[in-house]
Amino acid sequence: MTAARPDAGAVGGTGSGRGHRPALAVVGATGAVGAVLLELLSRGADIWGEIRLIASARSAGRALSVRGTETGVRALGEDAFEGVDVAVFVVPEEIAAQWVPVAVAKGSVVVDTSGAFRMDADVPLVVPEINAHAARVRPRGIVAGPGCTTLPLIAAMGALHAELGLSELVVSSYQAVSGAGQAGVAALRAQLAAVAGTELGTHPGDVRRAVGDATGPFPAPVALNVVPWAGSPEEGGWSSAETGVREESRKILGRPDLRISVTCVRVPVITGHSLSVHARFEREVTVERAHEILANAPGVVVCDSPAEGEFPTPADVVGTDPVWAGRVRRSPDDPRVLDLFLCGDNLRKGAALNAVQIAELVAAELTAP
Amino acid sequence: MTAARPDAGAVGGTGSGRGHRPALAVVGATGAVGAVLLELLSRGADIWGEIRLIASARSAGRALSVRGTETGVRALGEDAFEGVDVAVFVVPEEIAAQWVPVAVAKGSVVVDTSGAFRMDADVPLVVPEINAHAARVRPRGIVAGPGCTTLPLIAAMGALHAELGLSELVVSSYQAVSGAGQAGVAALRAQLAAVAGTELGTHPGDVRRAVGDATGPFPAPVALNVVPWAGSPEEGGWSSAETGVREESRKILGRPDLRISVTCVRVPVITGHSLSVHARFEREVTVERAHEILANAPGVVVCDSPAEGEFPTPADVVGTDPVWAGRVRRSPDDPRVLDLFLCGDNLRKGAALNAVQIAELVAAELTAP
Repeated sequence: MTAARPDAGAVGGTGSGRGHRPALAVVGATGAVGAVLLELLSRGADIWGEIRLIASARSAGRALSVRGTETGVRALGEDAFEGVDVAVFVVPEEIAAQWVPVAVAKGSVVVDTSGAFRMDADVPLVVPEINAHAARVRPRGIVAGPGCTTLPLIAAMGALHAELGLSELVVSSYQAVSGAGQAGVAALRAQLAAVAGTELGTHPGDVRRAVGDATGPFPAPVALNVVPWAGSPEEGGWSSAETGVREESRKILGRPDLRISVTCVRVPVITGHSLSVHARFEREVTVERAHEILANAPGVVVCDSPAEGEFPTPADVVGTDPVWAGRVRRSPDDPRVLDLFLCGDNLRKGAALNAVQIAELVAAELTAP
Repeated sequence: MTAARPDAGAVGGTGSGRGHRPALAVVGATGAVGAVLLELLSRGADIWGEIRLIASARSAGRALSVRGTETGVRALGEDAFEGVDVAVFVVPEEIAAQWVPVAVAKGSVVVDTSGAFRMDADVPLVVPEINAHAARVRPRGIVAGPGCTTLPLIAAMGALHAELGLSELVVSSYQAVSGAGQAGVAALRAQLAAVAGTELGTHPGDVRRAVGDATGPFPAPVALNVVPWAGSPEEGGWSSAETGVREESRKILGRPDLRISVTCVRVPVITGHSLSVHARFEREVTVERAHEILANAPGVVVCDSPAEGEFPTPADVVGTDPVWAGRVRRSPDDPRVLDLFLCGDNLRKGAALNAVQIAELVAAELTAP
């Protein structure tokens, strides 16, 4: 099976393919993930020709800096995709569901970070460090990236799985508010302002009363609190965030039978998702061996000397690219079981960085001789 | 085997035992848990004669309200335990290790909330709803209560264990700062003041720089952060908080072979510990059956309609007595596996309330005809 890509000639047709720089569109350029994406595109090797910024009509006309150049934002519409080789979508699911097919019809290969196409059997779900090969086969012209909670999990556990064979995962998340977009960040900042300097947090419901209706996109106050819910209700009491991590992990690891239980909890952190992970493998493992595998895994950094205060925390990893792994412990009950703690920037590797990495994979393929 | 209680005559000796009200001492009356304990002693049925308040020499001379009466605080010392029938210790471990034996030698039955004696084979470890019977056998004259993270776990899982037979637990905690005492609360409040109204939390280390040395009793900033560490280092990378929950759970449930993995994480919440729990049982279970068992368990309240925003959060349960259980889900992979989310007030059921309950058990026994 090869990629269905109606406009393959748009790049290859200009000659050998070498030398031509593909055009990139960023759809959702004015959002929280979009801002990080533009920053990532402005550093390191520049493989792109035009970088076109697209956002809702409301944001069109603004200018944003990318690669040091002020670039006007175009309104989302059919014309916006004319001549675009690769379109990265960093928009909510319902916008992606509507506009990704339009971009594909216009000849773009789409990299979508939303949940709209992740579980489509004809859409590869890609974490480049783990399954880059899957990005080459895209029957619908779409490559999806997983959710911002799945990403740090897979980057680290995929490496351990390759060496040790994963048989079960139990995951509890500590998710930052920016995973719910700029509205999530605004809600936490407003709530923190309401509780700072008070004696709140010691009587039932006092935080809830102080926050009132200002819960933002969350079903309960998140300042001085944790909220054991993310997403929408699914069957059996699960949240969509929880079933998402489960299904995405199984798909990316190619293990549709993997036992995996997930509990998603929102915490009062601006950016940086953390995960407490309990993993059972097919083979026995030591802490030393796990450290070695993780240290050699692309995109993963080991930070694990708790007696010296060395463990990953979101406040330390925010703004960095890799997934940070620490608190690696082997179960005293079973030499095949590890517990560990992972942190990653949910806007960066959790969304924008993973999308850029996929877009670069596609670009390399399009421009290959 | 019966309780070794050198001063049993001090109560029984005054007559039939009926009518005589035992004298209670609260050691650590001026601390965070002490304050809650005095509040609990001031409500409901009053079974105590004298209530004597004891604290460090530094706090002696202060007066605190208990049962509506201003009561002077006495300095901790050998004389302070004269005539005390039951002494509840709510002090740090090293103080308890030094002074509990003194109180016992003076004839008091001691209820200790610290870790000093919990794992002593001759000291029963008691959560009254689960193993009240164990409090009657106290070879050293001491009854211990478990740590504030173990308590909500055991109150709920003990009830499920009795019906379904527990075979494995995987626990991740979301622990409030008051679990580290008033210094923990002061540290979070100071840190929140430092970050409120700022744009902190979006660049690596910016929260750490703003907080500086003001981390209080924690090894990293806890405002706008989560800290995957509590306690002191133990073998194999585990923290003392984690091995504590493991060993205490096994002891209270009478299951020294229970498979249990724990990850303890501090979160920016003033009071209210939360737990994400993954439990495997010997028998199959449904969500409905689990709800039924939990709803009938003493000291447990079920709060589980997430689609209506009904789940336990620390901000809602702080200041309440019970352990709150929600987010009950059965694994799609195994009908013997449940995931659930528990919240409890770590100063109340997590420490003061459990100690009062144990003290009342002992008092009932001492005054029985």
